[in-house]
Amino acid sequence: MPGKDIHQSSINTIRCLAIDAIQKANSGHPGMPMGCATIAYRLYTKYMKHNPSNPKWINRDRFILSAGHGSMLLYSILHLCGYEISLDDIKNFRQWKSITAGHPEFGLAPGVETTTGPLGQGFANAIGMAVAQEYLGSIFNKDDIKIIDHFIYGICSDGDLMEGISHEAASLAGHLKLGKSIFFYDNNGITIDGKTSLAFSENIKQRFESYGWQVLNVEDVNDLNQIDKAVESAQKEKSKPTLVITKTHIGFGSPNKHDSASSHGSPLGEEEVKLTKKNLDWPEDKYFYIPSEVSDHFSVLKNGFKNYENEWQNLFNTYKTKYPSDAEKLLKYFNNDFGSDWIDILPSFEKYSEKLATRNASGKVLNAISSKLPTLISGSADLSESNNTLINGQSVFSADNYSGRNIHFGIREHAMAGIVNGIAIYGGIIPYCGTFLIFSDYMRPSIRLAALMKLRPIYVFTHDSIGLGEDGPTHQPIEQLAALRAIPGMTVIRPADANETTEAWKCALKHKGGPVALILTRQKIPVLDRQRFASAENLSKGAYILTESDKEPEVILMASGSEVALAIEVFNNLNKDGISARVISFPSWELFDSQTEEYKKSVLPSSVKARISIEAGIKQGWEKYLGEHGEAISIEKFGASAPYEVLFKEFGFTVEAVIKKVKTLLANLQTVKTV
Amino acid sequence: MPGKDIHQSSINTIRCLAIDAIQKANSGHPGMPMGCATIAYRLYTKYMKHNPSNPKWINRDRFILSAGHGSMLLYSILHLCGYEISLDDIKNFRQWKSITAGHPEFGLAPGVETTTGPLGQGFANAIGMAVAQEYLGSIFNKDDIKIIDHFIYGICSDGDLMEGISHEAASLAGHLKLGKSIFFYDNNGITIDGKTSLAFSENIKQRFESYGWQVLNVEDVNDLNQIDKAVESAQKEKSKPTLVITKTHIGFGSPNKHDSASSHGSPLGEEEVKLTKKNLDWPEDKYFYIPSEVSDHFSVLKNGFKNYENEWQNLFNTYKTKYPSDAEKLLKYFNNDFGSDWIDILPSFEKYSEKLATRNASGKVLNAISSKLPTLISGSADLSESNNTLINGQSVFSADNYSGRNIHFGIREHAMAGIVNGIAIYGGIIPYCGTFLIFSDYMRPSIRLAALMKLRPIYVFTHDSIGLGEDGPTHQPIEQLAALRAIPGMTVIRPADANETTEAWKCALKHKGGPVALILTRQKIPVLDRQRFASAENLSKGAYILTESDKEPEVILMASGSEVALAIEVFNNLNKDGISARVISFPSWELFDSQTEEYKKSVLPSSVKARISIEAGIKQGWEKYLGEHGEAISIEKFGASAPYEVLFKEFGFTVEAVIKKVKTLLANLQTVKTV
Repeated sequence: MPGKDIHQSSINTIRCLAIDAIQKANSGHPGMPMGCATIAYRLYTKYMKHNPSNPKWINRDRFILSAGHGSMLLYSILHLCGYEISLDDIKNFRQWKSITAGHPEFGLAPGVETTTGPLGQGFANAIGMAVAQEYLGSIFNKDDIKIIDHFIYGICSDGDLMEGISHEAASLAGHLKLGKSIFFYDNNGITIDGKTSLAFSENIKQRFESYGWQVLNVEDVNDLNQIDKAVESAQKEKSKPTLVITKTHIGFGSPNKHDSASSHGSPLGEEEVKLTKKNLDWPEDKYFYIPSEVSDHFSVLKNGFKNYENEWQNLFNTYKTKYPSDAEKLLKYFNNDFGSDWIDILPSFEKYSEKLATRNASGKVLNAISSKLPTLISGSADLSESNNTLINGQSVFSADNYSGRNIHFGIREHAMAGIVNGIAIYGGIIPYCGTFLIFSDYMRPSIRLAALMKLRPIYVFTHDSIGLGEDGPTHQPIEQLAALRAIPGMTVIRPADANETTEAWKCALKHKGGPVALILTRQKIPVLDRQRFASAENLSKGAYILTESDKEPEVILMASGSEVALAIEVFNNLNKDGISARVISFPSWELFDSQTEEYKKSVLPSSVKARISIEAGIKQGWEKYLGEHGEAISIEKFGASAPYEVLFKEFGFTVEAVIKKVKTLLANLQTVKTV
Repeated sequence: MPGKDIHQSSINTIRCLAIDAIQKANSGHPGMPMGCATIAYRLYTKYMKHNPSNPKWINRDRFILSAGHGSMLLYSILHLCGYEISLDDIKNFRQWKSITAGHPEFGLAPGVETTTGPLGQGFANAIGMAVAQEYLGSIFNKDDIKIIDHFIYGICSDGDLMEGISHEAASLAGHLKLGKSIFFYDNNGITIDGKTSLAFSENIKQRFESYGWQVLNVEDVNDLNQIDKAVESAQKEKSKPTLVITKTHIGFGSPNKHDSASSHGSPLGEEEVKLTKKNLDWPEDKYFYIPSEVSDHFSVLKNGFKNYENEWQNLFNTYKTKYPSDAEKLLKYFNNDFGSDWIDILPSFEKYSEKLATRNASGKVLNAISSKLPTLISGSADLSESNNTLINGQSVFSADNYSGRNIHFGIREHAMAGIVNGIAIYGGIIPYCGTFLIFSDYMRPSIRLAALMKLRPIYVFTHDSIGLGEDGPTHQPIEQLAALRAIPGMTVIRPADANETTEAWKCALKHKGGPVALILTRQKIPVLDRQRFASAENLSKGAYILTESDKEPEVILMASGSEVALAIEVFNNLNKDGISARVISFPSWELFDSQTEEYKKSVLPSSVKARISIEAGIKQGWEKYLGEHGEAISIEKFGASAPYEVLFKEFGFTVEAVIKKVKTLLANLQTVKTV
């Protein structure tokens, strides 16, 4: 019978809600919630300072379910705590339009701190949140008032710990001594394929100690005292993140699926559901059952939850009185309001007569505006000088100095992207990060989640083509532009010169609907003469007419980034030959596609069939702008190791080659017309 | 003066060749070769059994430069040892068409065992080679003759060890007790951004011991005795891979750039080159200088190198006599000749009246042919039952049983891909591996390298669309098909039913020019009636007419995978409405693009402007087949969590929605014509 022990009843309520929801959906992962119910219960009811009525309370403790397949664990405890997840929502688990998605989705159910499922991601996000907390704390906390001061809890699985991103993030977290991070490791000994011992025999304790973590053990997850002891030791250790290796039992309570992979990813089955409930001393014939004493118990708890925020509000009132300007800023930042002072000081490169790599222009923009955007922070995966992502005169974010704005992520692109997602989720900060464009491949799973969550990191991807030269094909992006553009919700901007780079940053900083990737050259390229050409401000439209002949254009040349200068040269030559042309600078497909039909037609009129795209990457997708007859100057194979001028020539990016293509195209179209 | 100590002279020759080549190219990474010259020298001249005259000798010791930026280290020692890399090649470092590319490229310079540069990849490749060695050893080695028995050496950098893939690969290598792997860790304390301590403070020894590795220390890289001791201890330890933490000095010998990040990625500069040579007691005015005593020294060594293979050849001759059938097989396999017996037993699904997921069909194909392809091996990243990648009746590849054909990679997709590359490079084996299509994102850096190296792994990517249902958008591929197709040299095949799955495997197994990805459904789909429709054998053409109306088609419907069945339903309905149509099954862009123009036009005649593509993913790139007027039934946003039938309906993949689109398209085209 439920009720003998209120804690056990509550924990079994969590288990049985999960079991029932998954059985009803006929889909899901019951084993994890059954095994880890005790951890979630204890954290949410005894340790976490949170307010279900205001899931966005700034100083709440966070809980990250990195093992996202255990979503029903989260939905169950959130429901019981009073978050706006109804019992009907739980009954609609995994159904169309339900907020209780198969894996927890940020922005869908309240109380879900991040989207998890792809393993390792939540773990890295949590480290990002810890970074954000420390950075903002360093700005806003005072000796007398710690206005940002909370813990970040989480549960991770063996899958999370096998993924490389967990290694990267854990190593950096240890290095940075992010002591507010407390992760329970759901050590159930089981993976989908069977026992973890099939593939996994590392000594987790030793591994995490090597990273500088505190590692604790809970021998029996169902012993609340052991959990208490672990949490309290973890909270006490201020200079090390803590991993609590917790012996759990997947499918706990199920007579036939306890400790078995069969409880991992499928409903228990109706018969086993009954047997499990019986075994847990639970009414077998009740579904989605919450005993009244459990409801009552949580009613009491809910009052306590409110107090947490109330207490903080009192503190914040004092803070407001003593530090009004900081208080105002804090709220503004968390409200995604970073002001617009920075716009006025965006640099212009009109007077540049020399060539300038767009990566260098980017560094100048970043440094110009950084003083007006004190929470624009981040760094690079060990390429800060190459990426020009350093904010000059600002210190390094380190264990001794959380006010540093330059983060050295190390050679850990994947964790960098996952951490930056966590920073973005946390709020109050605009995170950016840099690496070579080729290594966006290492970051893709996290970039995709940024897009799915509509987060706003800014990626500074430099060395954007064969234009990087001698480092060769392993470092030369060919398909990366196309692959990034393929991600729904991603905005990719490849500016044509320094002034477009300024505008690209402007767009990126104003953009709030998802991540923005700035694609920048290693090599120097001309700064276009804006007296002669259209204003770089047009970049915000994604594509615009840079210049054109007096006559109706016979051919349209569209190019992005470093290839725009080539298009202009071709244009000049065509004019000399009496061929009228138009040059379109085409920095962003996504921005262009969101313009009005009228604008789009004005740039790319359907009457002009002779269209050439010029971009040092694969053509995939350019077809939509090229139409049936257009031709791409593109690269359909891997690059090579040589000086970049040689490469551009050998790969067909020369005035002569493009002109030849234009003339052939015009001749062919003439034939088509004639025929 | 050179010559005082022949070892020191040889080592300085390596250093100065690297320095000069990089200075001449005005591009490259001198610091690493200067710091690690001693390691490479000692391995290649004292320990490695190799034969520069036959770099492909089966039983050679391998050397993997995971820190690929140190390419000049490799080229220098290979040149001195007598590999076909001339001094002119070295003088042409990083130039167009030179075999001495910026980063070592497999297939370009002899003796380069794998393409490295993107960090962590070479490390994982080496583990793959160790797996291949053990598997082939388990088949071909006899109690009296170990015909495959060698070491795999390597040098890795802190960058390699920071990357997540190194964690994944090292953890699995320890688990599998791959004792033949011996890696030197170039512990120079410096990364591009500065001191490694900026971002990296983990205890490497403890970390690798946690994985089950033997960890040794070399306090001074330039002490040959210490290196000898380490190598000999590593060789002795049979059941653990070994990491030798080696204290090195980046830019060793350079008075001003020793131990400094400034020697990492740029030439020393002419002045510093001179100062360095002076400091190394080297003639300052000589470039690409090889002292005669060093030449003589290597001449003697070269004779020894030949003996290594000669000795093995003698052994192999005995082996041939005693085990002729095995000897023949061994040579055949290493010659990429796996016979064609398997083709005769490829299953056909003509009699299936039930629906069948293509992932299940794939499992049946794999199991049918596996007996005839004993070196078709591999497995899955903990999803073997979901991916249907298990070979039934075959054991698990484990530390106790290297003859197992089923590898459990754990939840380590990235290392899986890197390891599979290593297996493919090793030769004699056709490796395949599986995970959900969405997690191809985790594998991309390694997939790209497989394509660049033209390796032949087969990827079994299941759960290929929103058709996976309730797991939701984190697990539903949307852009992955486009992103994989974007990789040059990649072949992507998405079969429409069970029989196309058979043909897809056939293509994949016959294909030798790069990796092949099989894209398979989770959900059951119809087995098409091949009495009524064209033969599935047409799959090899990439796209083919499945069926069409008697009249000239007004509209062409092209679809891949699970959407082909929908296209057929639409076709049936259109016919009823008197609209003539053609259905194209379009499993592979790359296979279709390689057909003759004639064939392509016969399938997609330019006269038919009304074209519809149907694929449950983004449309990017379909435009090239759709022409100016065609329309895509595609998904341009992320998926959702719900039963898959609901999702297909909500995302517009219904007969009604497609028919509506067809009719609108035909009406619009009518208008166009009329106007």
